Amino acid sequence: MAEPLETPEDLTRLRLDIAYDGTNFQGWAKQPGIRTVQGELEGALATIFRRHGETPILTVAGRTDAGVHATGQVAHLDLTSPQLRHLAAPHGRGASAVEPSTTSVGPALAKRINGIAGLKSDVYVSRVAVAPPGFDARFSPTWRRYEYRLADAGAQRNPLLRGHTVWYPATLDLEAMNSAALQLLGLHDWAAYCRPRPGATTIRELQEFAWGRDSTGVLVARLQADAFCHSMVRALVGATVSVGQGKLAVDRLAGIRDESRRTSEFKVMPAAGLTLVEVGYPDAAGLAARAEQTRARRDAGGAHLTE
Amino acid sequence: MAEPLETPEDLTRLRLDIAYDGTNFQGWAKQPGIRTVQGELEGALATIFRRHGETPILTVAGRTDAGVHATGQVAHLDLTSPQLRHLAAPHGRGASAVEPSTTSVGPALAKRINGIAGLKSDVYVSRVAVAPPGFDARFSPTWRRYEYRLADAGAQRNPLLRGHTVWYPATLDLEAMNSAALQLLGLHDWAAYCRPRPGATTIRELQEFAWGRDSTGVLVARLQADAFCHSMVRALVGATVSVGQGKLAVDRLAGIRDESRRTSEFKVMPAAGLTLVEVGYPDAAGLAARAEQTRARRDAGGAHLTE
Repeated sequence: MAEPLETPEDLTRLRLDIAYDGTNFQGWAKQPGIRTVQGELEGALATIFRRHGETPILTVAGRTDAGVHATGQVAHLDLTSPQLRHLAAPHGRGASAVEPSTTSVGPALAKRINGIAGLKSDVYVSRVAVAPPGFDARFSPTWRRYEYRLADAGAQRNPLLRGHTVWYPATLDLEAMNSAALQLLGLHDWAAYCRPRPGATTIRELQEFAWGRDSTGVLVARLQADAFCHSMVRALVGATVSVGQGKLAVDRLAGIRDESRRTSEFKVMPAAGLTLVEVGYPDAAGLAARAEQTRARRDAGGAHLTE
Repeated sequence: MAEPLETPEDLTRLRLDIAYDGTNFQGWAKQPGIRTVQGELEGALATIFRRHGETPILTVAGRTDAGVHATGQVAHLDLTSPQLRHLAAPHGRGASAVEPSTTSVGPALAKRINGIAGLKSDVYVSRVAVAPPGFDARFSPTWRRYEYRLADAGAQRNPLLRGHTVWYPATLDLEAMNSAALQLLGLHDWAAYCRPRPGATTIRELQEFAWGRDSTGVLVARLQADAFCHSMVRALVGATVSVGQGKLAVDRLAGIRDESRRTSEFKVMPAAGLTLVEVGYPDAAGLAARAEQTRARRDAGGAHLTE
């Protein structure tokens, strides 16, 4: 290691707000030899800090699957003092001698990452700022919100939006879909709607699930939960689509959930329609408490947070 | 020719509403060996009518340039009776013996074209219907409307929309841009804002030109005119952007227009931000009169309708 070992107290945590078109990424999580969002961003960080110690690692709020998009993804990283000073220095002139201001460091890092990614890039860092004390991108969130876009036969099909909208050949019954969605809300075991992962809990609170049509008739589902287990959003969307087609009864979806085992009565919908739109964090006062609480839960049950 | 020559009275005119992502098209107009929207659609028509006479030719409302998009493009084509009967017949079973209903023919043609283009296509025919008497996609319109999307430094940059949004590295002064745009409205000679084309008039009525920010802060210009001459929309957008940057005075744009010659004081903006969103037609009563009037104007002055 080029830098001496530092205690966490010596590190400065930055929050990154990130948007990406997931089409050409194999998801968020870094994998050798495969293009992923984390891999792309950490590659840029490696370039930026190549002469300033170890490359910072990103910790993310929602580990999206291959093909899933984000407009409101959040991640954090920890920088050493030499790394902070490097950011504050004029580009290419080495580390600044003066202590960097905490407000200038974030925009400087965003600019450098986006500069490496390029103007036409499918990933964009919309904001970087010093995180408040106790902030943890993965463990602090109180909720995650996703949207799913589906153009059925009742919608206008706009080729400009085809990268994040799924075409559907029939007209779906919006009212039936919303009745079914409403019955699903609350704190439940979602094992029937999750792809199993060892040690990961499937107990989640579904706080919002509603379908609407936008001004062009495209069906847009809004789903919010404390966290979603693996493939849960796309399974819930697929189950309501089966209801909208008349293939499943409105009250069958809660029944499937309560039987707690996977079923073939509905299809998990394609990743292309799914976008992580927002992650909710407590205010500064609640942050430290929240991080402690989530960490304890993970140690007890393994809150493997995905999607 | 496989079909006997028919008089126009034997033909049925269909109106097509078309949307496309212009990114991978070299514009609307057919050119040998180059991928264009007209070429792509007429290729599908050639397949559909391969055993039913000459391939119908598309006449379009707005001949968009390379890279320009459309959500509300309009075109027409004329079909012979055998072609109509072929559309009304079950797929692949030859022409129907019964006279086709005029309401079923349009959806049948839309379905076949979109079936050939495929679900993930960058061009989509949103509607086909028998046109009212006197309808001419090119000569009937009373107005065309375009939008231009520009994400300046004050906007959120959404990679999902990067295909039809231009990134701009500075923050632009919306109020100054709108003051300049407002001064441009009306019936004028736009030669200073047009790429010259032999025999094409540059006298146009600019009916609307206003910038706003959408919910994500992206600057969106709305421009409406009876018709636009070549590259006029992107020149007007570029001129107001120069004003928004403070490089040109608010009242200079009308001055440039009235000097009636091309200038290097502003840049023509990239095609990627531009979308043809709607074409306005008179009601049935006004259609025939309008077509006559426009044809007469063309014969006199050459209304070479582009963009």
